[in-house]
Amino acid sequence: MELIGYWRSSAAYRVRIALNLKGIDHQKLFCDLRAGEQHSEGYKLLNPQGLVPTLINAEGVRLTQSLAIIEWLEEVYPNPRLLPSNTVERALARAAAMEIACDIHPLNNLRVLNYLRGTLAQPEAAVQAWIGHWISTGLESLEARFAGTSGEFFFDASPGVLEICLVPQLYSARRFGIDVTKYARLLRAERAAAELPAFQLAAPEVQPDARV
Amino acid sequence: MELIGYWRSSAAYRVRIALNLKGIDHQKLFCDLRAGEQHSEGYKLLNPQGLVPTLINAEGVRLTQSLAIIEWLEEVYPNPRLLPSNTVERALARAAAMEIACDIHPLNNLRVLNYLRGTLAQPEAAVQAWIGHWISTGLESLEARFAGTSGEFFFDASPGVLEICLVPQLYSARRFGIDVTKYARLLRAERAAAELPAFQLAAPEVQPDARV
Repeated sequence: MELIGYWRSSAAYRVRIALNLKGIDHQKLFCDLRAGEQHSEGYKLLNPQGLVPTLINAEGVRLTQSLAIIEWLEEVYPNPRLLPSNTVERALARAAAMEIACDIHPLNNLRVLNYLRGTLAQPEAAVQAWIGHWISTGLESLEARFAGTSGEFFFDASPGVLEICLVPQLYSARRFGIDVTKYARLLRAERAAAELPAFQLAAPEVQPDARV
Repeated sequence: MELIGYWRSSAAYRVRIALNLKGIDHQKLFCDLRAGEQHSEGYKLLNPQGLVPTLINAEGVRLTQSLAIIEWLEEVYPNPRLLPSNTVERALARAAAMEIACDIHPLNNLRVLNYLRGTLAQPEAAVQAWIGHWISTGLESLEARFAGTSGEFFFDASPGVLEICLVPQLYSARRFGIDVTKYARLLRAERAAAELPAFQLAAPEVQPDARV
C-alpha cells in the first residue's frame, strides 16, 4: 500500500495516524503542495481533485478523501476499531469528526487561503482572522459538546476517528497562532494521544518531506 | 423519529432523501435559517453547531451532520442499501459524496456567505464568483471522474449516498445561477433520481416550510 501525502496536510496526517493505529505497513510518497505538485497532470491522474492524501491499495485502486479512506480501513482491517461498537455512538463519533473534516478544515485549506489572498486580495490580517474565526467556532462547539465527559479519549479507552481528526486540527490551529489553551477537554484527549507511537510517528515534523 | 430541517438546506435535503429511500416514517420540524432560528438557545441545545439538520431518533438521541446521520441510517435500517456492497466501491462512493459534502457545500454555506458579505465586505458579484468557483471546481472534478461510466446511477442500479449528495448540490448550483448543462453524466443521474418519489418528496419546493 502507498500513501501519497504532504507533511503539513491535516487530511494526510489523519490517514497516517489511522494506518499507524491499525499497524498497516505502507510506503510513503509525497506531493509537495507548496511547490504546486498537486496541480501536475501526473498527480491529477491519481487524484482528480488535486488534493492529498491519496491511498493506493494493494490492488492498485486509488482511494481519496481522508474520512472515506478511514472508513475503508475500518471495514477491511477492523482491528483495532476506530469507531465505537454501538451504532448511536458511532453516529456521534462520526458527526464530531465531520465537524472538523467538513466545517473547519475545508475552510482553511491552502486552496481557499490562496483564493482569499489572490482573487479577493485580502490582506494577511484578514486571512488570519478568517482562519481564526472558523477554527475557533468549530473547536468551541466541540469543547462544549465534550466538556462534561470523563476519561481521556472521547468514546472508547483507545483513540478513534474523532481523535484522528482532532490532533491534526489542533496542530494546524497552533501553526496559525490560535490560542487553544481554553479547550481543556480537547487538550486532555490530545495529551493522551501524544503518548502513543501511532500519533508520534504521524506528526508532521517527523515526516521525511518535512521542511524546518 | 423527528427531522429538524430547513427547506433550502442542502444537508437537510440529503437526509430527507435518505429517509424517503429507506421508507422511514418521521415527523418534520423546521428551523428557519433566514430568520436566524439556528442561533437560538433552544435550537443550540439540540444542535450545538447551530446547523441543520438534526435528527432525533426514537430514543430521543440527537444526531447531527448529514453524512453521519446517513451512515447511522445505513447501519440501523440496512435496506435498501445506500452504499455499494463491495468495500472498494463503498470507499469510492463515500469519497465522491465527501467531495460534495466537505469540499463544495461548506464553502457556500449561509454562514460563510454571511462572513464574506459582512466581515469581509465583499460586493455581491465577488460572493457570486466565490460560489461559482467552488461549485464548478467540485462538479467538474466529479463529472471527469464519472464521464465514462455507463448506466444512470453511479455505483448501483438504485441511488445511494452520492446521488443523495449530488441532487441537492445541483439544486443549489442552479439557485445560484450556475450553468450546469455541461455536466452531462451528473445530469443523467439527476434525471433518473427525479423520477423517484423519494427524491420528488424531498425537493425543497414541496416542503411545508418552503416560501416562494
